[in-house]
Amino acid sequence: MSIRIEKAESLKQKPESKKIPFGQVFTDHMFVMDYEEGQGWYDPRIVPYAPITLDPAAMIFHYGQTVFEGLKAYRTKDGGTLLFRPDKNMQRLNKSNRRMSIPEIDEEEVLGYIKQLVEIEKDWVPEFEGTSLYIRPFIISTEPNLAVAPSKTYKLMVILSPVGPYFAGGMKPVRIKVEDEFTRAVKGGTGAAKTAGNYSAAYRAQANAKQEGHADVLWLDGVEKRYIEEVGSMNIFFKIDGKVVTPALSGSILEGVTRMSVLELLKDWDIPVEERKISVAELYQYYEEGKLEEAFGAGTAAVISPVGRLDWLGNTMTINDEEVGPLAKRLYDEITGIQLGEREDTKGWSVNV
Amino acid sequence: MSIRIEKAESLKQKPESKKIPFGQVFTDHMFVMDYEEGQGWYDPRIVPYAPITLDPAAMIFHYGQTVFEGLKAYRTKDGGTLLFRPDKNMQRLNKSNRRMSIPEIDEEEVLGYIKQLVEIEKDWVPEFEGTSLYIRPFIISTEPNLAVAPSKTYKLMVILSPVGPYFAGGMKPVRIKVEDEFTRAVKGGTGAAKTAGNYSAAYRAQANAKQEGHADVLWLDGVEKRYIEEVGSMNIFFKIDGKVVTPALSGSILEGVTRMSVLELLKDWDIPVEERKISVAELYQYYEEGKLEEAFGAGTAAVISPVGRLDWLGNTMTINDEEVGPLAKRLYDEITGIQLGEREDTKGWSVNV
Repeated sequence: MSIRIEKAESLKQKPESKKIPFGQVFTDHMFVMDYEEGQGWYDPRIVPYAPITLDPAAMIFHYGQTVFEGLKAYRTKDGGTLLFRPDKNMQRLNKSNRRMSIPEIDEEEVLGYIKQLVEIEKDWVPEFEGTSLYIRPFIISTEPNLAVAPSKTYKLMVILSPVGPYFAGGMKPVRIKVEDEFTRAVKGGTGAAKTAGNYSAAYRAQANAKQEGHADVLWLDGVEKRYIEEVGSMNIFFKIDGKVVTPALSGSILEGVTRMSVLELLKDWDIPVEERKISVAELYQYYEEGKLEEAFGAGTAAVISPVGRLDWLGNTMTINDEEVGPLAKRLYDEITGIQLGEREDTKGWSVNV
Repeated sequence: MSIRIEKAESLKQKPESKKIPFGQVFTDHMFVMDYEEGQGWYDPRIVPYAPITLDPAAMIFHYGQTVFEGLKAYRTKDGGTLLFRPDKNMQRLNKSNRRMSIPEIDEEEVLGYIKQLVEIEKDWVPEFEGTSLYIRPFIISTEPNLAVAPSKTYKLMVILSPVGPYFAGGMKPVRIKVEDEFTRAVKGGTGAAKTAGNYSAAYRAQANAKQEGHADVLWLDGVEKRYIEEVGSMNIFFKIDGKVVTPALSGSILEGVTRMSVLELLKDWDIPVEERKISVAELYQYYEEGKLEEAFGAGTAAVISPVGRLDWLGNTMTINDEEVGPLAKRLYDEITGIQLGEREDTKGWSVNV
């Protein structure tokens, strides 16, 4: 579809410092496209960033039929702009759409629109080390109707937000609490979809964890409350006795793009890796045997976030003396190196804008 | 707080027929109140029904932090307007608020605002038998911020929608499918809160059921997939060998106002009732023994909705020859009688507007 572009009449001041709070500053333009039953997706357009107007009965406000994605654009040393595996985000958006009964998008087409938006906003991609331009595509149900049923109209939007470095003072291991009361997701539910309700469902548990000095919670499976699933915004990896173990996708775990990239790199590096069910009790046993060498999360926000301590029902696992482990560091350097165009991209992960 | 009232300059045409599709027609005014961290809830106002304007980064679009309620205003024969146990909806709204990390409301105060709104819109309460004015209070998170954390600002709104009779051609038993693939909610999750994400999570299962000729699905517990929880928009009751059995509140079942009213009436009528775990296998055994006398849902929309058939993994339970059972009929007549002010309200359930 041909895209309509309406440029902003005046441009905003861009942040001068690299201390940009996550998700609070937005660029001058946004992408919008509408959907109507019978007509399909229509009127793709890049327009000035502006509030949107919806009927109070719009279904998004009542029944939460919505999906989103998160990816980043990186500034290379020679002034170019790179996206990291954006096709994976488009695939996952459609996977989420199917779970939430939202009409699918044309993945290539929408990726093309995102590239055009980022191209127009390329001066917003920050230059400081560790910074990037966060890209948030999302689809909301807009039909004004209180019937509990899929919407007949939708709006796909893409907004952009420059973000500062995740680790402002250098990479630092975090403390995580194994959540034993609340549940994030369960088999047959929406845990594998990137949909709004999964995130606010976690707030109570996260607030409790923060009060106790933890950065986030590690979720267990909803059925037996034994098997490790994921951290709020990251998939989790453990290095145990030379092998890397990560929970197998269970239907209630989000399939992270960074997760799949870590798995591919480990394979390349001939580091043995197991995707399987792992209970927190099993993990604790390895810890007691001195075999738990590293733990780290993998996600778009932090790329790799080492876990220095895990607290589980009064048991404390201190991992690698709460220092950054060599594998976490190697993965971080490799992935960010590819993202910034500083390391050879043999897999075609980086996409030029 | 003193309420600000801005009347609409022109009024809409009210529906003349009783065939009003649910949730698509809205009255002339709505109630709005805002919340800001540090200030609390402020500026309660009744204003003309109109679209609302939000930043595309408003948290409701991304992380689903939102709650809602549903109740009805009924027209009495002498032209009065009654609400049915609205204090219970206010209590549940705050219960949902606590689960979703949304600031609580002053229940009495907000109920007072709702009464004022209904009073202004009293000509919208339809007169035909079985009709009512549906009241939808809801709270949405409005802070423009992509950080995954509770919002610092919210908007509470109340919109009103005249609705036609649930059973247009008289009460008719429905066919329900026992859902064995998808899961609505699980212990530790948000199932007991009235929050948006729970509803769209059900669309896939409901669409499958409808294709097979079922009106809705009966959800099983998320852990063992054995115990009966609720129907999409109703709690469920079974009459087994003279006794009434309904699933005990498990933490993942919504505590319906109609459910609690049914329980209180059954007690008054000296009909034995058990709130307990009941598996679908146990139910099927009673069915085979000829002891499953009635099944019915209880909820604000239908009040009482008899279930004529339950399909479970290839097993069919035909209940009371797919006719309306005497207990379902008695409960329906009693509750709607009280709602319409036609039967004596010994419990103080009805509230005059």
